[in-house]
Formats: sequence, C-alpha cells, structure tokens
Amino acid sequence: MRDQYYEQLDAIVDDLVSLTGTVRRAVAESTKALLEADGAIAESVIAGDKDIDEATEMIEERALLLLATQQPVATDLRQLVATLRMLSDLQRMGDLSVHVAKVARRRMPDSAVPLNLHPTITRMAAVADSMIDSASRIVANRDVAAAAQLEDEDDEMDRLRRELLRSLLGDDWDHGVEPAVDLALLGRYYERIGDHAVSMARRVVYLVTGQGQLT
Amino acid sequence: MRDQYYEQLDAIVDDLVSLTGTVRRAVAESTKALLEADGAIAESVIAGDKDIDEATEMIEERALLLLATQQPVATDLRQLVATLRMLSDLQRMGDLSVHVAKVARRRMPDSAVPLNLHPTITRMAAVADSMIDSASRIVANRDVAAAAQLEDEDDEMDRLRRELLRSLLGDDWDHGVEPAVDLALLGRYYERIGDHAVSMARRVVYLVTGQGQLT
Repeated sequence: MRDQYYEQLDAIVDDLVSLTGTVRRAVAESTKALLEADGAIAESVIAGDKDIDEATEMIEERALLLLATQQPVATDLRQLVATLRMLSDLQRMGDLSVHVAKVARRRMPDSAVPLNLHPTITRMAAVADSMIDSASRIVANRDVAAAAQLEDEDDEMDRLRRELLRSLLGDDWDHGVEPAVDLALLGRYYERIGDHAVSMARRVVYLVTGQGQLT
Repeated sequence: MRDQYYEQLDAIVDDLVSLTGTVRRAVAESTKALLEADGAIAESVIAGDKDIDEATEMIEERALLLLATQQPVATDLRQLVATLRMLSDLQRMGDLSVHVAKVARRRMPDSAVPLNLHPTITRMAAVADSMIDSASRIVANRDVAAAAQLEDEDDEMDRLRRELLRSLLGDDWDHGVEPAVDLALLGRYYERIGDHAVSMARRVVYLVTGQGQLT
C-alpha cells in the first residue's frame, strides 16, 4: 500500500517537473515574440496556455485522488499539499507568459521594447529562465542547497526591475509614454514569474527542513 | 466524529470570512493612502501585512491538521483544499494592497494619482471593495447565485482598467511618464485584487455545483 503510494506520488512529481519544462518554454517563447516582434510565436504562446491549464488540472485531479484514497499524514500530506500549490504557481507562470505575448502582439509590427532596452529584457528573461530551471531541479531532486542560489537570482531580478524602472523615469527617456507603460508591466510580469519559481523552491525547502514559510 | 469535523470546518470557514474582512479593509486603506497622499495610513497598511500573513498561516495549519486527523474524502476533502487555496488568494490580495500603499508612499507628499484620474481609481477601488465583499458572502453562505454578479463586477473592473490605460496613452496625457508608470501598475494591482475575489467565488461554485474550474 505505502509502496504504491510513493510510486504514484513520484509519478505526480515527475509530471510536475515535466510541466515546469513546458512553462519554461512558454516564457522563453513569449520573450522571443516580444523582442523579435514575431506574431506567430506570440499566437502560439497564447493558444498553448490551454494545454498548460489542462495539464495542471489533470495532475491536480490525480493528487486529489491520491489524497482521498491513501489519506497520507504528516510529511506525506504536506508534500501533496505542496504539490497542489506548485501547480498553482506553474499555472500562474503560464498566464504571465501569455501577458508578455499579448504585449508583444499589441505592438506588432514593432517590438514593444525599444532597442536600447533589449539587453535589460533579455537579461530579465534569462534570469527567469534560470530560476524556472533551478526550481525544476529543486523539485525533482529535493535539492535544498540549490534554493539559496535561487534566492540570489531573485535579488538579481529585483535589481533588473529597478534598473528598468529607472530607465523609464530617467531624464533621457525619449520613447514616450506608451513603451514606458508596456515596460513597467513587462517588468512586473518577469518579476512575478521569478517570484513563483522562488515559491516553488521554498515549498520544497519547507518540506525537507521544516524551516521557512508554509505559503 | 463527523459532527466534530463539521464544527471545526465551520470554525475555519468563519475565520476565513473574518480574514476576508481584514483584507478588504487593507485594500480600502491603501486606496485612501493613495488618493489622500497619507503617509501614516500607507505605513499602517505596509506594517499590517504581517498580521494578514500570520492569520493566513494559522488558519492553514488548522486546515492541514483537520485534513490529517479527520481524513475527509470527496466533497469534504475538496472543501478543505478549496479553503487552502482561498487563503492563498487572501494573502496575495494583502500583498497587492501593500503594493498600492508603496506606490502611495513613493510619491509623498504628492498623490501618485493626478486629480483628473481620482474618479477612475476611486471607482476601481469601489469595485474591488464590492468584489471582496461579495466573495466573502459567497464563501460564508455558499451563495452560488451571487457569483454571477461578481463576474459582472469583474467585467466592470476590466473595463475600468482599459479606460485607465487609454487615458495614459491618449494624446491629451500631459502628466509625463512617471505617473503613467505608477498608474499602469496600480491598474494591474486592482485588477489582480478583483481576480482573486473571482477565484474565491469560483472555488465555492465548483464545490457546490461541480461546475467550472478547479483552479
């Protein structure tokens, strides 16, 4: 009975890790759509969110079924609840990649990002990508040590967002209000993607060590 | 045993409803800080978020304990899982009210909102307030009929956010980039507060009717 439980739990965690890969690709594609002003890629990210939602719901249903049939307690129970929460994180990251793709689509055929800010957005997207990758490995391997590095990357993300806001608000900003509004929102979207990766990692740390916050 | 279970569940739902009231006040206060450029109120919202986080965690711990000790199945299990998710919604709404208060604080002694947009922000805050109130009553009374009205209010919120963005991007916008960036983010924060109220209502609808989305 218990063996069967852990087998099913492992299968759920495997699917969660695989979904993390899907979300990571959606974020990377939405950045590509944004920087290259590529409408086809933007549409594919927007359409693909349905698959992320469906995958999330399927994994959730299996987690709830396992909860109901095996009635785990203590750490096993917390792991299943943490899994449900990580699924919510992934679904929100998928939504945020759609928001990025929609900003890209709204400004077609131009890029919503002025050329001089391509490096900053490229860097934010690279940090987000690395954070999702770290979160995935932390979940897969319960690698608590890697979680500290993720917190550093989160600091880097915050720094980049402040740098971006400073650019928009500086005296030499000459792109007008519309790109400033887009970039303020884009900065927020990437920051939130990073936040959700940090959430995922913290849930694993909490499970393994009992330290830190539950939520 | 079952009676005791429902008693404890009811107590948890009561505390969830009471926390919704706290979050509603935090959102209202953050709007007051924003429109009246009141630093003391902004600080009190920012400091008060700790209490919302602590209340969230205490209710969560009790929900998890009930889950572990009573091992509910079927609808009872789903209700507890839904409760955990509504707690996450409330915690995020609290965070968003802090974001509003921080925008207010950053622009002191001025208001971050130009006078001609006070009516729009006042209206967004009023819709958010009403949405949180509706969500609270839907949770307290399992009032599925009220959920339809909440969806209408969400449409109103989306309309207001579009109107706000149009103002920022219109030819007659003469407040410059900084208030535009603030308002783009504020619009997003109020919209997200509304989204979380809708989430809470949908979770109740799903529990009661089995219709709609799990997440």
